[in-house]
Amino acid sequence: MASITTSLINHQVRLAARPVGAVKAGDWQFTEEPVAEPTDGGVLVQVLALSLDPAMRGWMNEGKSYIPPVGLGEVMRAGGIGRVIASKNPAFAVGDVVTGGPGVQEYWSVAADQLKRSGVAKIDLRLGTVNQWLNVLGMPGMTGYFGLMDVGQPQPGETVVVSGAAGAVGQTVGQIAKIKGCRVVGIAGGPAKCGWVVKELGFDACIDYKRPAPAGVERWDAVREGLKQHCAKGVDIYFDNVGGDILDAVLARINRKARIVICGAISQYNNTGAVTGPKNYLSLLVNRARMEGMVVFDYADRYPQAIVEMAGYLKDGRMKSKEDVAEGGVAVFPSTLQKLFSGENFGKLVLQIAQ
Amino acid sequence: MASITTSLINHQVRLAARPVGAVKAGDWQFTEEPVAEPTDGGVLVQVLALSLDPAMRGWMNEGKSYIPPVGLGEVMRAGGIGRVIASKNPAFAVGDVVTGGPGVQEYWSVAADQLKRSGVAKIDLRLGTVNQWLNVLGMPGMTGYFGLMDVGQPQPGETVVVSGAAGAVGQTVGQIAKIKGCRVVGIAGGPAKCGWVVKELGFDACIDYKRPAPAGVERWDAVREGLKQHCAKGVDIYFDNVGGDILDAVLARINRKARIVICGAISQYNNTGAVTGPKNYLSLLVNRARMEGMVVFDYADRYPQAIVEMAGYLKDGRMKSKEDVAEGGVAVFPSTLQKLFSGENFGKLVLQIAQ
Repeated sequence: MASITTSLINHQVRLAARPVGAVKAGDWQFTEEPVAEPTDGGVLVQVLALSLDPAMRGWMNEGKSYIPPVGLGEVMRAGGIGRVIASKNPAFAVGDVVTGGPGVQEYWSVAADQLKRSGVAKIDLRLGTVNQWLNVLGMPGMTGYFGLMDVGQPQPGETVVVSGAAGAVGQTVGQIAKIKGCRVVGIAGGPAKCGWVVKELGFDACIDYKRPAPAGVERWDAVREGLKQHCAKGVDIYFDNVGGDILDAVLARINRKARIVICGAISQYNNTGAVTGPKNYLSLLVNRARMEGMVVFDYADRYPQAIVEMAGYLKDGRMKSKEDVAEGGVAVFPSTLQKLFSGENFGKLVLQIAQ
Repeated sequence: MASITTSLINHQVRLAARPVGAVKAGDWQFTEEPVAEPTDGGVLVQVLALSLDPAMRGWMNEGKSYIPPVGLGEVMRAGGIGRVIASKNPAFAVGDVVTGGPGVQEYWSVAADQLKRSGVAKIDLRLGTVNQWLNVLGMPGMTGYFGLMDVGQPQPGETVVVSGAAGAVGQTVGQIAKIKGCRVVGIAGGPAKCGWVVKELGFDACIDYKRPAPAGVERWDAVREGLKQHCAKGVDIYFDNVGGDILDAVLARINRKARIVICGAISQYNNTGAVTGPKNYLSLLVNRARMEGMVVFDYADRYPQAIVEMAGYLKDGRMKSKEDVAEGGVAVFPSTLQKLFSGENFGKLVLQIAQ
């Protein structure tokens, strides 16, 4: 077994500096080190694919949040899937495919006492592909599922709006909402994404927030107009991944007792100044509505049942998934991450590390 | 009976113009008209006292809200208490004291089909004085009660922060929260109000947001510092009557699963530009917290039980009430209303119309 690993080199991406505004090349450091044998009770994992998520931008900032920031000099935090290539733990055999938080590197040596803390768990590739395990069966899918079902509490016939509709979380939210009998209106950037969520995923409509507005009309007025047109009966649930002007536009259209799920605010993550707060928040008062934040990790003990439900939808064709898979390994991690913030990715952004 | 009313003149205050920013004298029109006999099934009420509330500012604006705006030329909407002086309805006798929405005028003739819609109901002065019926037993008290109990859902040992602490709603919220076993921290303007809620109402602490900050410290930093000092274990419930910078300061201190009750935003009501949204709203996400609006009218069918509970607290001395009673009748309505927005009122603002 020792012969497998001693000649391997682990390439890594570490956080070199805390970014101010958009992440720059100089905020990263590339390192390499020899791959070590697992210690007693530990496993060595070859990383197959990493999940690239908007939340990563938050992890790079100093300060209190729902998890501690990535330390300067540490391997950048990332969820991912890998294959066990050496094991000194009877619960894991060489060849097992596992999910967990390997970070941005090629090999992940997990000590015995870190296995549980790092969320290492075997996955069943009969339920979905590696990429689907990072998408609808993974963190984004769980986020969409529990955010919609537990916080949003959809009822048949209600109107659900989801921003970042073609993204990893958005595609899950919209499809589950359709399965639960809701009218679903997406908000996404560009005709390709909008067309896809309507034609392929079965959303009832999608508003293209990047569409050039007619002469004399402001872009956000066009979004407001789209909401008026496609949500004629108002908005009962808004699943917000973006914040900013879109959140305000939806707030102006909510119904009584509406639920706004605050999942993220990608429009605000690269701000160097203060976050823009929702000017229309008093619509919550007028409409007796609520705005509630959620963090997926709180639902960890219910992932298994959600995964079974979602895998069932994938299998019977009621749910589709789309991943945007970047190749090039850890070397292209910095440039690939940028795609999330420019909206260039189309579907769940995955960085392939090995075959 | 006719002789009682034919010689009476009804003085009224009507909305003459929709205010831009702060309300000006010219936004009001004073009118008078003879008092008419009640029609069949109707009653004639002499107004004793009116409730002056921050919500009035919203009723003056055009546009969709939880109730229609006051029409131009209409008598200004106001809740109040009056005495029946003529009745053609067997359910009401001359001398009965009733609550309802008389508007800013001295006499209120209520037609049969308006009695229910206007919320006319007899009140029992053994449960509380006329002024208390406009305060803890009235709309502000009901707002505080249901906002705290239903939306806030206080648990013993939790920390409750309430802004506008010395106001009509705030004093109710804080006292109920104490009765329910919470730690209560008020936010109010000036040492008199702060001292009163601590010494008389039993709040655990009160932060004076008007207190001049030490050299080199911004006023809102001083509020933040006060929250840090007095809410060492964080904030579980924030009952917000003011919005603006204070809402942001509290958002920065909330605990996991905190509840923010959006009852009002008096700091924003006279804005001519957009409302300032809460910059720190993403604290809801990090803390899995919620912000929820409430409108007291939704709880109308549960007022009677809440009134009985509150009257019990008044009687056994566990709850106190303070009203700021202005004299001078409808003529001083405009100047008295201003006191709410400058924070001059101390306790529930009541305008006495008749003895």
